[in-house]
Amino acid sequence: MSKELLREVAFRRFKEKLFAHTLEPGQFLSQRELSEMLDVPLAPMREAVQRLASAGLVRIIAQRGVQILEPSPQMLNEAFELRIILECAAIKTIPLSSISEQLRENEELVLRLQSILVEPLGFERIKEVLSVDWMLHKQLIQAMGNETIESVYNINADKIRLARLRQHFRAEQLYQALDEHMKVIKALLDQDKDTAAAYMELHLKNALTRGLGISNLYRGNNLHEFPAKSHPST
Amino acid sequence: MSKELLREVAFRRFKEKLFAHTLEPGQFLSQRELSEMLDVPLAPMREAVQRLASAGLVRIIAQRGVQILEPSPQMLNEAFELRIILECAAIKTIPLSSISEQLRENEELVLRLQSILVEPLGFERIKEVLSVDWMLHKQLIQAMGNETIESVYNINADKIRLARLRQHFRAEQLYQALDEHMKVIKALLDQDKDTAAAYMELHLKNALTRGLGISNLYRGNNLHEFPAKSHPST
Repeated sequence: MSKELLREVAFRRFKEKLFAHTLEPGQFLSQRELSEMLDVPLAPMREAVQRLASAGLVRIIAQRGVQILEPSPQMLNEAFELRIILECAAIKTIPLSSISEQLRENEELVLRLQSILVEPLGFERIKEVLSVDWMLHKQLIQAMGNETIESVYNINADKIRLARLRQHFRAEQLYQALDEHMKVIKALLDQDKDTAAAYMELHLKNALTRGLGISNLYRGNNLHEFPAKSHPST
Repeated sequence: MSKELLREVAFRRFKEKLFAHTLEPGQFLSQRELSEMLDVPLAPMREAVQRLASAGLVRIIAQRGVQILEPSPQMLNEAFELRIILECAAIKTIPLSSISEQLRENEELVLRLQSILVEPLGFERIKEVLSVDWMLHKQLIQAMGNETIESVYNINADKIRLARLRQHFRAEQLYQALDEHMKVIKALLDQDKDTAAAYMELHLKNALTRGLGISNLYRGNNLHEFPAKSHPST
């Protein structure tokens, strides 16, 4: 395999291990350990690690090797603020007719999942809900047709996914999250962009606190307020 | 020097050469040539190149080595769309009182530069205007206090700077750009965020076309429209 290809393989395998819980947030590894674990020679592994560091998924620490990112509350706050800005901009700019079919499919998936969400929640069911959750968000960003923004969004999303690995969800919380999606979807289908953006902002603020044990960081800390938008009355 | 440090040195020296016109957009180099030019051993150079590729400043091409980014009109459009979204979000979220002193200093610099902008324009004068131009934008982003957004913004800004290396400016164009800054600054000092954001959007759209030979890509192409905002009447 060429060196270029090995580097890509290393990058991909690393993310697979990460999102399959084989690598743990906060964990330290030497580059040699990583190279053995991912079955990739050391030189392309070292280069892949630089990419992972650029994407914010690892930190390279002199003499110690590589530390898997352990997202701090501050980092999650920042990542969600970026999400809110990009997703609300997406809602405001995309032609809604171009995604109405995707929205209707999404609506059906949400309804189906909501009808079967009961405790105890298996890992597979949680994964299914989270993947339907991401789908709406990624569809909106993709519909912007801006690869630069899509790449920024996806790197940011990986960090959030990493934090989610440690989240514990109850069926009620996932039901709520899907309910919030329904509100966004319905507003988009009604061509009401302002309401959709306001519901999206609310949903993302809730998502930050839901299940993460982060109890509303926006109050009483020294971070500025999120974009002030009117809350839709429900 | 440690390997970690050499990697950082390589990254920094590369950007210095790039912005000092020693490396040309579109140019191909082998990793060995880069290593010699920047006086950094090959192994850390290879790792630095991965970072540069992540930052979008080079492309790694199998068998050929490294190509210095040559921003396409499409990429510049995307980069400016991201800038508009982030800078308008900054204007809407930051507490204006926190940057009023910076704004007043900026206002004075703009006035001083405008008073001495005459043809023929030397390279140093252009550099001075561009650095005052970036100052306002970066101050607004920094005032958000979100390191994730700042890092995304700076990587995007590097790509735009790279495209600017090939721009030709006339004094009148730079005068206009500074005039647009004045409008943003005055609106911010008046605490009128909506007007400031609208002027900023207009300024950035003008900046994209000014001197780049890109004549309004937003009309008649298949990219969606930028966020629709009311134009301030002047």
